[in-house]
Amino acid sequence: MMNNPFFKNSGPFKLSELLKHHKNYPNFLKEISNDENFIDDIKNLNEATSKDITFFHSVKYKNLATKTDAYACITKSDFLHLLPERCIKIPCDNVLLLTAMITAKFYPDSINDDNNHILHNISEKFTNIISGKNTLVGSNVAIGKNTKIGHNTIIENNVTIGSNCLIGSNVIIRNSIIEDNVHILDGAIIGKKGFGFIPINLKNIRYPHVGYVHIKKNSEIGCGSTIDRGSLSVTIIGENTFIDNQVHIAHNVKIGDNCIIAGQVGIAGSSILGNNVLIGGQAGISGHLKIGNNVQIGGGSGVIKDIPDNSKVMGYPAKNFRNFIREAR
Amino acid sequence: MMNNPFFKNSGPFKLSELLKHHKNYPNFLKEISNDENFIDDIKNLNEATSKDITFFHSVKYKNLATKTDAYACITKSDFLHLLPERCIKIPCDNVLLLTAMITAKFYPDSINDDNNHILHNISEKFTNIISGKNTLVGSNVAIGKNTKIGHNTIIENNVTIGSNCLIGSNVIIRNSIIEDNVHILDGAIIGKKGFGFIPINLKNIRYPHVGYVHIKKNSEIGCGSTIDRGSLSVTIIGENTFIDNQVHIAHNVKIGDNCIIAGQVGIAGSSILGNNVLIGGQAGISGHLKIGNNVQIGGGSGVIKDIPDNSKVMGYPAKNFRNFIREAR
Amino acid sequence: MMNNPFFKNSGPFKLSELLKHHKNYPNFLKEISNDENFIDDIKNLNEATSKDITFFHSVKYKNLATKTDAYACITKSDFLHLLPERCIKIPCDNVLLLTAMITAKFYPDSINDDNNHILHNISEKFTNIISGKNTLVGSNVAIGKNTKIGHNTIIENNVTIGSNCLIGSNVIIRNSIIEDNVHILDGAIIGKKGFGFIPINLKNIRYPHVGYVHIKKNSEIGCGSTIDRGSLSVTIIGENTFIDNQVHIAHNVKIGDNCIIAGQVGIAGSSILGNNVLIGGQAGISGHLKIGNNVQIGGGSGVIKDIPDNSKVMGYPAKNFRNFIREAR
Repeated sequence: MMNNPFFKNSGPFKLSELLKHHKNYPNFLKEISNDENFIDDIKNLNEATSKDITFFHSVKYKNLATKTDAYACITKSDFLHLLPERCIKIPCDNVLLLTAMITAKFYPDSINDDNNHILHNISEKFTNIISGKNTLVGSNVAIGKNTKIGHNTIIENNVTIGSNCLIGSNVIIRNSIIEDNVHILDGAIIGKKGFGFIPINLKNIRYPHVGYVHIKKNSEIGCGSTIDRGSLSVTIIGENTFIDNQVHIAHNVKIGDNCIIAGQVGIAGSSILGNNVLIGGQAGISGHLKIGNNVQIGGGSGVIKDIPDNSKVMGYPAKNFRNFIREAR
Repeated sequence: MMNNPFFKNSGPFKLSELLKHHKNYPNFLKEISNDENFIDDIKNLNEATSKDITFFHSVKYKNLATKTDAYACITKSDFLHLLPERCIKIPCDNVLLLTAMITAKFYPDSINDDNNHILHNISEKFTNIISGKNTLVGSNVAIGKNTKIGHNTIIENNVTIGSNCLIGSNVIIRNSIIEDNVHILDGAIIGKKGFGFIPINLKNIRYPHVGYVHIKKNSEIGCGSTIDRGSLSVTIIGENTFIDNQVHIAHNVKIGDNCIIAGQVGIAGSSILGNNVLIGGQAGISGHLKIGNNVQIGGGSGVIKDIPDNSKVMGYPAKNFRNFIREAR
Repeated sequence: MMNNPFFKNSGPFKLSELLKHHKNYPNFLKEISNDENFIDDIKNLNEATSKDITFFHSVKYKNLATKTDAYACITKSDFLHLLPERCIKIPCDNVLLLTAMITAKFYPDSINDDNNHILHNISEKFTNIISGKNTLVGSNVAIGKNTKIGHNTIIENNVTIGSNCLIGSNVIIRNSIIEDNVHILDGAIIGKKGFGFIPINLKNIRYPHVGYVHIKKNSEIGCGSTIDRGSLSVTIIGENTFIDNQVHIAHNVKIGDNCIIAGQVGIAGSSILGNNVLIGGQAGISGHLKIGNNVQIGGGSGVIKDIPDNSKVMGYPAKNFRNFIREAR
């Protein structure tokens, strides 16, 4: 995500401004009190530049952490030594909580999908679009030519739809970029905030989701499928990727080109899939995994670790396809 | 459920009135012909008072049966000896069928979700609510202050919504109590009758569902999730419990406080979950189970037996987490 | 499918007309250039008559291929010898692609669910129907007496609904025959084109779906469930079959009478289920399988091979129920 296209950034801020309400850092705040540098944005380890702050919460991201260009990084005490020397290290017991609070400072309007209540009938705004009855549209919406939209569909704020797209009925889209020739079938819900929050008894703290969904050209999203937008990153559906009914794609997931994903598949947050991946019905992929190119995953599988390129797996937990079939006899 | 808040009770009835059309009981009906006592209601084994009738259809509920306070109980011949001596025992070959027929006598309007066709635009009824276009509301509905409701949403009959709630678009709610500060996301369907019927070839008999859904404060229900109302009992979502997209919660399920339930999880009828339960994506829990407090259930698991407090399980069938990981190697 | 009730057949065509744009067949086209016979339609192996063309793409259908009455058949070179002598054999590297192109020639309007944008408010068209607000109806629709339809529901083109049906709110139906006394609950999507296409990098070719959905009397379809219409065949839900919430039934599936299918089950394309089949929650059935009569499939199972009559199976892959329970100990 080069620059956030949809949410307004309230920054830049000095590091001392970002941390001033955090009473855990008296010495640390004293240390940085003379730091006059401005921080532009909060980004992931691999996307942060020398003008951004980042966070490092799981050992899974060790390799990215050692190479981050970030100006400063929030992390656990145990992980401090893994960061580059030049990076200002902010030790923290609850990395995600502090990350959420700083994200909310940069993007104060990003926490709730506080459905926009001031929508217009689409025919009032787009006279060159073929659309059905009761279809509504919000602000910051662009729709390309020859795109058709069904009935009772809601295109909320911050949506770009390309040309020659078919959007069905009862669809809801927000915070999404949809390229040309994409089909989104009836009842799909695209761009909702992800299922991200800091679990705290009696009052969870919702994590800001300032990302968006990017669906590349020639793709298809099935009926009743849900694709959540990223938290700090983008949820991506690659070019010519076809997704069947009742599939759930969580926040920050990135799916490559020419993939085929059958009905009721679920992909948990932040997993990355290569190109030409084939997934059978009801398979599930855990979060933060890397699935290579040309991977085939059998129906019903539960994938709980990375899968290298050109593999064929099946089972729960998913294993080499031949082993699954041999053991099944 | 102390008293039924939504469905009108046509009782009380004498026992002989409840059974008079059941020709299988000539001697039994003669026996009770002088019984002048009135029966107030039909309730579960543990909720029935000495003025109620109850039913006992599965050996799973043996412990509750031995302690029931019910005035009378419908059960199988094999189970008669398990009931307290004071309880009038009604032997029956098809316990659920007779229970359904007696429930229908108490609550004649409870069998179908015969969608109310006389709804009003919400802005006609609630002038102090922020709501979207085409949002409809039925009768016996209360909505608290600062609650916001999206577009194309249907709040049918018998719904109480607290303050500071966010209800999304394309949502359907009926027969439900929703406390303060609850978020219900787009496309969720709350309070439908459960999937309960007496299977009979060529014409199943639908079981009455006189219960409701109770969602406690600070909870969140994800996009496209379905929560069915109880048959004779309540379906409960505890306080501060967060449920992701495309989750299905069947009738009579009770979920504790501070639970986190990931996408596409399914919980079958009448299962009871404790507090602080964490369930990974696509896991399934069979019906009539008891899941303790602080239980963690891995993604994709299939839980087919009770799980004690503080356990961590994974697999299908779900087993101790360490065993699952060891065997997966 | 005797004759296609919904899609207009542009035929009949001579075989040479059907193949003339396919440059791979110079000798073959010369061979058939004097063939003056007309071909009426494209049908499955077992439904094709001596006036139809058919296709044979998988060894699974060998038994049907040897007995087909079809006038001509598209197939792989390897399979040519399996077809009856009288059948004209059309060898082809990509059987489904050529089948799709010929189907599109017979039914040029069948490729996209290009949502009909000219719907009418149902009350303008059906004055004897009880229906809710914002409910829309297309062309070629018939609805029987005493049927009730909820709010925001879309009955698109080519739908026949019987008497005494209950259709919920936010439902979408197209290309479907629904018999008497069927209940379709809120949010269900019936009759969408199946997830069928010829995978080609950078631009998949969508397969025509000229079939329909046939739901027999006394059945029930749960909230948010999706039932796709057949490609060349019919998707059938038998009489008195009850389907719970969030179930996905893919194209060409045929389900018998008196079946019970619990929540979140998925049935992949072209599988055939007998009568009295019982399927527990979240179970999945692979495509092109045959499940016998009186089969019980445990919750969470993954069925990957045919199941004979009267079997009870569970597990992933599904095995004999007793073995599953023994191994689970």
